[in-house]
Amino acid sequence: MAKAVFYHAGCPVCVDAEQMILNYLDPAKTEIEVVNFGTDTSRIEEAELAGVKSVPALVLDGWVYHINFGASMEDVKK
Amino acid sequence: MAKAVFYHAGCPVCVDAEQMILNYLDPAKTEIEVVNFGTDTSRIEEAELAGVKSVPALVLDGWVYHINFGASMEDVKK
Repeated sequence: MAKAVFYHAGCPVCVDAEQMILNYLDPAKTEIEVVNFGTDTSRIEEAELAGVKSVPALVLDGWVYHINFGASMEDVKK
Repeated sequence: MAKAVFYHAGCPVCVDAEQMILNYLDPAKTEIEVVNFGTDTSRIEEAELAGVKSVPALVLDGWVYHINFGASMEDVKK
């Protein structure tokens, strides 16, 4: 089971990507967690260490996938 | 069953994203097709009409998701 963490900031681009993640990732292979920096800034450091440069981003099995472009990591710290 | 078309150009960023698509999209909900512009330029127009601006990109159920950034659509026409 691969760990899939979807980081976002509540922006429209993020919500759109979230639907894809939640609807179409294989539940038999992935354990999905959704982290919203808009309500939980404590997870920002962990995301940056994983290689997240912008949100929305999916960290899946240790690999970072930046999906479309919603907000930079600098923006979510404001 | 949603139609999922993954457009790429054979670049390293594309191949990385392709693994995520092929390994983790739910086969019960998606019918996946992979299009490589490096070997099939005839599909470029269709991709642009769908809204693809760069590859790798996934068009899933009519929505475009640009994953990371490998090559612009202008680059794949060269």
